[in-house]
Amino acid sequence: MSPLRTALLQSSGRPGSVAGNLKVLDEAAGRAAKAGAGLLISPEMFLSGYAIGDEVPLLAEPADGPAARSVAEIAERHGIAVMYGYPEREGELIFNSAQLIGRDGRSLANYRKTHLFGCFEQQWFTPGEQQVVQAELDGVRVGMLICYDVEFPENVRAHALAGTDLLLVPTAQMHPFQFVAESLVPVRAFESQMYIAYVNRTGPEGEFEFVGLSCLASPDGTTRVRAGRGEELVVGDVDLALLYASRETNPYLRDRRPGLYTS
Amino acid sequence: MSPLRTALLQSSGRPGSVAGNLKVLDEAAGRAAKAGAGLLISPEMFLSGYAIGDEVPLLAEPADGPAARSVAEIAERHGIAVMYGYPEREGELIFNSAQLIGRDGRSLANYRKTHLFGCFEQQWFTPGEQQVVQAELDGVRVGMLICYDVEFPENVRAHALAGTDLLLVPTAQMHPFQFVAESLVPVRAFESQMYIAYVNRTGPEGEFEFVGLSCLASPDGTTRVRAGRGEELVVGDVDLALLYASRETNPYLRDRRPGLYTS
Repeated sequence: MSPLRTALLQSSGRPGSVAGNLKVLDEAAGRAAKAGAGLLISPEMFLSGYAIGDEVPLLAEPADGPAARSVAEIAERHGIAVMYGYPEREGELIFNSAQLIGRDGRSLANYRKTHLFGCFEQQWFTPGEQQVVQAELDGVRVGMLICYDVEFPENVRAHALAGTDLLLVPTAQMHPFQFVAESLVPVRAFESQMYIAYVNRTGPEGEFEFVGLSCLASPDGTTRVRAGRGEELVVGDVDLALLYASRETNPYLRDRRPGLYTS
Repeated sequence: MSPLRTALLQSSGRPGSVAGNLKVLDEAAGRAAKAGAGLLISPEMFLSGYAIGDEVPLLAEPADGPAARSVAEIAERHGIAVMYGYPEREGELIFNSAQLIGRDGRSLANYRKTHLFGCFEQQWFTPGEQQVVQAELDGVRVGMLICYDVEFPENVRAHALAGTDLLLVPTAQMHPFQFVAESLVPVRAFESQMYIAYVNRTGPEGEFEFVGLSCLASPDGTTRVRAGRGEELVVGDVDLALLYASRETNPYLRDRRPGLYTS
């Protein structure tokens, strides 16, 4: 099986402008498809911007709203699956969500962030209640988390036990927590034996300073590709043969002793 | 409260010679005490050597055997708590254990490795059945794991939830797994908000090549002290004020959602 080439769009787009962000996504999908990628991942809240405060309820849309239809059109036109973060409205509730659209334009999965970070998110969002959300993409079992979620080993372990091969993690990772991007994400991929695509915003936005450093972390402890601090589209391969070999060398999932674990 | 100065003895001692290793431990305890340390930690299986194969049953001793009495005498004479790894005999069973002796010469805790690594360990040892073993030392709640145990986030999390401030981890960490020493251990300290003292063997021994790189990892994501590849005694401070401040900045334990976790 040929590897799934995966493109990470490290960008803060145009905070506050859904139309502007769709344009950035369209352009990136074109470049990613040309580079041979079958999947493009954008950061947390990419569709709306992150530091949008009072505009969260104004820019929130249902999972099948107009922006979702625009992303579906982009995915289909470029023949590439696309994942994007957005504020999701369901009735009175707003979730911090990410949706994966297949290259045929159909939604493959929608995930609502379960672990909200800090005052801003806790003020605006309702936490999701489903820990593991997965989809199949070109023979790869992909799972979804958002930003702070991945910092909890419990969440990544649950994905590993459910068979996730590649974890997609849109993020809005800010100064001074770059230790997470640099060290924690590669360790998560190693300890739970999967690929992790961690895709960040960049530069200043409101009170935040995003650190970039997006990466594709590999189950063997290496980092396949690592972005710098600025806007960038980086591409790396998810190779199931390497993944299966790594699981043999690092048998963490086999050597667990769940009978001892109570927490 | 003044910090607990902690000394890490990175050494493979004299594999196969309990008397030789007691001598190395005695000398290190003297140097550590002179440096102001209240605790000295030695590597996994320090008392016997690690790659001792058929000699495991010959060198195994009960937790209150003659070597334990010798370590107690060393601790009392230098006025420093001492932790050492050893093969522990109980009847027909042999465990891969570590014992912590107080500066008054009394045993504070004895831990049996729960996650055995590879064929060599699985051939000779019975796995321990108690995940969390703790003791109080100068106002610091210390916990104990051995080598491979710490690579499982479940074990460190269980310690965090039980209130461990400082996790003592004697290890026999070998090539090509230095990613564990360099990256995984600091991430464990950060994600579960505690200090971790990871104390390794060094150099070739039988079929193994130990990588050194012992460290005192801090809950703020920094590494307080890091040894090189060779024999070395390194010293770092465990500061509860810093630990409590770090837990406020990184509220992982508060933000967990155990109701979602099923694995």
